[in-house]
Amino acid sequence: MFAPLRNDTFLRACLRQPTTHTPIWLMRQAGRYLPEYRATRIKAGNSFMGLATNVQYATEVTLQPLDRYALDAAILFSDILTVPDAMGLGLSFGVGEGPRFAHPLRDEAAVAALQVPDLDRLRYVFDAVTSIRRALDGRVPLIGFSGSPWTLACYMVEGAGSSDYRLVKSMLYGRPDLMHRVLDINAQAVTAYLNAQVDAGAQALMLFDSWGGVLADGAFQRFSLDYTRRVLAGLKREQDGQRIPVIVFTKGGGLWLDQVADCGADVVGLDWTVNLGRARAAVGARVALQGNLDPNVLFAPPAAVAREAMAVLDSFGRPQRSDGGWDGHVFNLGHGINQHTPPEHVTALVEAVHQHSRRLREPA
Amino acid sequence: MFAPLRNDTFLRACLRQPTTHTPIWLMRQAGRYLPEYRATRIKAGNSFMGLATNVQYATEVTLQPLDRYALDAAILFSDILTVPDAMGLGLSFGVGEGPRFAHPLRDEAAVAALQVPDLDRLRYVFDAVTSIRRALDGRVPLIGFSGSPWTLACYMVEGAGSSDYRLVKSMLYGRPDLMHRVLDINAQAVTAYLNAQVDAGAQALMLFDSWGGVLADGAFQRFSLDYTRRVLAGLKREQDGQRIPVIVFTKGGGLWLDQVADCGADVVGLDWTVNLGRARAAVGARVALQGNLDPNVLFAPPAAVAREAMAVLDSFGRPQRSDGGWDGHVFNLGHGINQHTPPEHVTALVEAVHQHSRRLREPA
Repeated sequence: MFAPLRNDTFLRACLRQPTTHTPIWLMRQAGRYLPEYRATRIKAGNSFMGLATNVQYATEVTLQPLDRYALDAAILFSDILTVPDAMGLGLSFGVGEGPRFAHPLRDEAAVAALQVPDLDRLRYVFDAVTSIRRALDGRVPLIGFSGSPWTLACYMVEGAGSSDYRLVKSMLYGRPDLMHRVLDINAQAVTAYLNAQVDAGAQALMLFDSWGGVLADGAFQRFSLDYTRRVLAGLKREQDGQRIPVIVFTKGGGLWLDQVADCGADVVGLDWTVNLGRARAAVGARVALQGNLDPNVLFAPPAAVAREAMAVLDSFGRPQRSDGGWDGHVFNLGHGINQHTPPEHVTALVEAVHQHSRRLREPA
Repeated sequence: MFAPLRNDTFLRACLRQPTTHTPIWLMRQAGRYLPEYRATRIKAGNSFMGLATNVQYATEVTLQPLDRYALDAAILFSDILTVPDAMGLGLSFGVGEGPRFAHPLRDEAAVAALQVPDLDRLRYVFDAVTSIRRALDGRVPLIGFSGSPWTLACYMVEGAGSSDYRLVKSMLYGRPDLMHRVLDINAQAVTAYLNAQVDAGAQALMLFDSWGGVLADGAFQRFSLDYTRRVLAGLKREQDGQRIPVIVFTKGGGLWLDQVADCGADVVGLDWTVNLGRARAAVGARVALQGNLDPNVLFAPPAAVAREAMAVLDSFGRPQRSDGGWDGHVFNLGHGINQHTPPEHVTALVEAVHQHSRRLREPA
């Protein structure tokens, strides 16, 4: 059904297999910093969801960064909030604003009414996955994704982005029973959503626990990680004889690395606050690591970008261990690329990662 | 000159000396969640700086939370941005907005022109310290404070709060020479500013490294912690035969706890992401710990507030070690108290901390 994969470096690194270079992709690599993205978005009525719900546009913007840069993976163009939207919460993106829900979960009745959505309402996502996979024609693997149950719950209760998470944490501390019901439904929905992406053609999966890091120690384990684990346990991990690696990324979760590494993921994403060398020493034998350049490095001149990228690679070290086995590193930013990033600086980054990581594999 | 101290529990905990209970104070305890604060602020023209620059108003609002709650310390009512304001950057607070500088540091010329300010321009702060210390009349110790060199630099370059720190990090990665000049001047200014607060009557000091946690590993050590260390090295640590404890709080800095604990501070502040028991095991023999309740716990019903407060105390454990020595714990939130906090929930918190921490000191 799909063309054979010509560059499997990303998948191999995820599975801690030998690679000729360190693969790189960038969170939000199809985005506003690219003029060609902005042009397609205008065709789509200057609307984010106009892009995401149109299979042709979603395919077009997903492939744009691959035409410009030698990236080693593609990621579905979509949003983490498609699932709560399908639950009937009424997602919208105001001009120049973040996402907003018309019907946030603010009381017991709203929580009681919440249901796992009919996956047919997310058909546009699965159609986009299949279309993108076909358009990729085997160039690089396609990553599908979802928000984690906790991260979705943050938006579902707050109704929008938040600086203090007051409403969702009020529910968590004041009515943990309601919080657990929301998370349980989210975990079921996310599991089904990701499995359907695999059926549609996704070759790897990523779970964005973008707001796990705002939780207190203890609360993180009970309200975020436990539900991430539940999703992982329900995922298909193989399709057509090929392992489907799963990446879990808890932004701000460096303190819980050891526990996250045991949640069932193949790869743990790290933000730039984490020392990659120490992280590898702690969990590198169990999982591959993804990250972790500060996206703001991309505002520095290209020579500085290359220097900082090499420092990240050096911090991880030679992927081949002295015992001959391999640890896995997927280069990425520690957060989505900033919309003001100069596109030519990304060229310098990708070249530096590829060149320096090849050098790191040469015999000492 | 000043009345003798009647409650030295906070100072004793900072210095890891025996205490009858765990002392508690709250970051931003004099603030908008208190109706009496809002009333005084209206008298001051509904202006934050109108309060902070008026000795009588600053004294009045500093004491308000102590009249309502059995808190174990007072903290100077002021803002971390007084120092860059005195450098001529032109601080203002728009209605319903955060702080803003009229003249942020955006180019080489602005950085070259930056100078350590004349402390006379901060006289109103030192006058407030002396007035508050007199008004306290020995009830509890008075904490003076400043922003850390890095945190001040964030505001000085960004010109306001930021969600991505793009401008300051562009300088850091692209022109580290300029960044180091700003930090060097800030470190000199902060050192002089804190020493003048001690001369005016402050009995403990706190350095707020509020934005240290946004830095990458490696950059944190070079651009934040090194300058914090430089400030610490220049501080008076004794006044009238009494040790002046210094608290360093890096929000989001839990991963660097071990290094922060070696910067010369007596106390390290922790946010709620850190496991207090593990932190104590790692550094409790070197420094006291302050924290670390999630401020959002205060939106839960009083019984839940008490339960979560006890969990924090239990996580630290009995302050007296099995060898008879004492480790230090100062109870606090992991961030400033939220302006929407119900004031009566703070009563429940303070009572729970005092009662449960006395129980923790009873013979097993």
